[in-house]
Amino acid sequence: MKVSGEPKTIAVVGGGQLCRMMAEAAAPLGYEIVFLDSTPNAPAQPVSRRQIVGALEDPAPLKRLLKYADFLTFDIELADADQIQSIDSSVPIHPNPKTLSCIQDKLKQKRMLQKEGIPTPDFRSVETEEDLSQAGKERGFPLMVKSRFGGYDGRGNFLLRDEDSIKNVFSKLTGPLMVEDYVDFERELAVIGAKNSKDRRVYPPTCTVHKDEILRHTVTPAPVSDSVKEEAIRVALETMQLLEGRGVFGIELFQTDGSILLNEIAPRPHNSGHWTIEGAVTSQFEQHVRAVTDSPLGSTELIEPSVTVNILGENKNKNVRLGGVKEVLSSPRTHFHWYGKKVERPLRKMGHFTVTGNKPREELLEKARNLLDKLRFST
Amino acid sequence: MKVSGEPKTIAVVGGGQLCRMMAEAAAPLGYEIVFLDSTPNAPAQPVSRRQIVGALEDPAPLKRLLKYADFLTFDIELADADQIQSIDSSVPIHPNPKTLSCIQDKLKQKRMLQKEGIPTPDFRSVETEEDLSQAGKERGFPLMVKSRFGGYDGRGNFLLRDEDSIKNVFSKLTGPLMVEDYVDFERELAVIGAKNSKDRRVYPPTCTVHKDEILRHTVTPAPVSDSVKEEAIRVALETMQLLEGRGVFGIELFQTDGSILLNEIAPRPHNSGHWTIEGAVTSQFEQHVRAVTDSPLGSTELIEPSVTVNILGENKNKNVRLGGVKEVLSSPRTHFHWYGKKVERPLRKMGHFTVTGNKPREELLEKARNLLDKLRFST
Repeated sequence: MKVSGEPKTIAVVGGGQLCRMMAEAAAPLGYEIVFLDSTPNAPAQPVSRRQIVGALEDPAPLKRLLKYADFLTFDIELADADQIQSIDSSVPIHPNPKTLSCIQDKLKQKRMLQKEGIPTPDFRSVETEEDLSQAGKERGFPLMVKSRFGGYDGRGNFLLRDEDSIKNVFSKLTGPLMVEDYVDFERELAVIGAKNSKDRRVYPPTCTVHKDEILRHTVTPAPVSDSVKEEAIRVALETMQLLEGRGVFGIELFQTDGSILLNEIAPRPHNSGHWTIEGAVTSQFEQHVRAVTDSPLGSTELIEPSVTVNILGENKNKNVRLGGVKEVLSSPRTHFHWYGKKVERPLRKMGHFTVTGNKPREELLEKARNLLDKLRFST
Repeated sequence: MKVSGEPKTIAVVGGGQLCRMMAEAAAPLGYEIVFLDSTPNAPAQPVSRRQIVGALEDPAPLKRLLKYADFLTFDIELADADQIQSIDSSVPIHPNPKTLSCIQDKLKQKRMLQKEGIPTPDFRSVETEEDLSQAGKERGFPLMVKSRFGGYDGRGNFLLRDEDSIKNVFSKLTGPLMVEDYVDFERELAVIGAKNSKDRRVYPPTCTVHKDEILRHTVTPAPVSDSVKEEAIRVALETMQLLEGRGVFGIELFQTDGSILLNEIAPRPHNSGHWTIEGAVTSQFEQHVRAVTDSPLGSTELIEPSVTVNILGENKNKNVRLGGVKEVLSSPRTHFHWYGKKVERPLRKMGHFTVTGNKPREELLEKARNLLDKLRFST
């Protein structure tokens, strides 16, 4: 394997914070980033070689992006990888377009997983109110109704509490739907995994805490028994074996009383893996660069326990400012990450910070909560 | 303290590997980098917002650089900070132009240090062969003759072994000269320090190993007694107190039998501090960004012992390739940093890698040496 003065370029579809953090990690390995995003001056812009401005689904900007690509990968899985492949079949696309199209359709994803023996919540396709009523009779309420395509960060999900609410579902959700058992989990876990052409590796499971279906913080290592940890890792490794192509995968799990169920797969670095930047030997972003370029995977070993907290937008503001950052920067072993987004929206991911330390979990959590309280958006 | 969607820009004079690693560290804190360098597509380019191409000493490109600057700092201390200040006196320049002009003249630097009680090797100004002959008589050979201006990485230094060699000095070195006692040191140490307007902090001393006056590797923590460590830190802290302005300083020291002598000061992140990227809680590059912007300084605590090895050019090649990188990436707890330079020259700094681990120093060194042996340049 060689690096050279004419560096290889990783083309990225989407230029949000994941692409930004990929770019920060790609340079030390000798790779450059060119990305496509519809918003000019997207978060990845200041640390990338070049942004192509254009819609992720239009052939013309995709063609321009491919001109620069030695490898192509994704910051967001909304793009049509098959279309990209058809424009230029010589550029290696990772993860594989097949994997992406399977993951993009949540019903197809779950069917594949079920067929291969991965434990998931019970699910079925729904097309009509009658289908939902029937599901309610058979499985009981509440049920989780999901748009099969395009949902993320809770968008595209509807918690169906009872028979009477069925009439609201089709006005709230668009496109083809599916319904799943609502899982009364003990906790949610996530395992970040990576694969190249020869190797699969996983990071220690992290505990993810959501509110309004948006990730709020992660606690690593997850406070679970060895057997739960082993089962989470087993499910993650088996799931990754089913997914063609190289890259990092965020594998979201439910831990119920006695079992692990697969919730969803993200075919890219994932919010639940931001702790790896300071908490593990190799960050998930460096790992993704290694995997996509088929370099050897890095060590996934934990360095220190950590709590990572998302900094979420509160209001609608065009030129956002975040106050209280001094408190975060003054706090020892606290690592701040700002995504450079100009526009604030409620619950938009604007940044994160990670506190690390060989301390009891509750102490790290308390420290993180106190710091988050200090942060205030203004204009 | 606030970050905002309209990020502040740090303008950097020089766009080499130090600026590149500053840029990697600036983005998470919400700062963008614009830099000036005479070589188009300089190492920092792929991770910076913008490069201004131009000579570091010309007013026109400096003016263009200043247009973008919320803060101005340096990747290389060859620029004339006074000139920059005279172009636009409203931009905060850190370190301070006074500090830079003092450090740029090695004689002025040493005189200031001596006056303030910082221990240094004995030195004097020389203008003629007779001055050198006189110095030899008084202090004995060998002596270290240095260009007062512009030398670094051993360029501008001449080891004067005897009276007979005096005739060669003035053809080898240019500009005004000084001469210092040659220090028969036990080892060389370096302390990376940082200061903002309120605070000074130092990292644990590292042991630096040079060959042909080029840094080859660092060993951290330096294998020295507590009293040597304390004296090195005392000298570094006192030295920093004499230097006006904010920023990171690389403070190079000689450890002799029983004392610490100051060798040289770099008014910027320094090669001897690359270990901080993985080996300390806050990297020297993040620390420099924090210091220059007068943000709170980060923790300088050690995470793990480390050995950092420079990857130096071997030949003259226009389109360099480095083979054997796979071995480095396959090695656990080994962190690779490529600087993206196209042109290889003998002893040019092309990249570095750091191995970390709670292991005996000799084991880390052995691992690093074996990995360096695997790396091979080609075209």
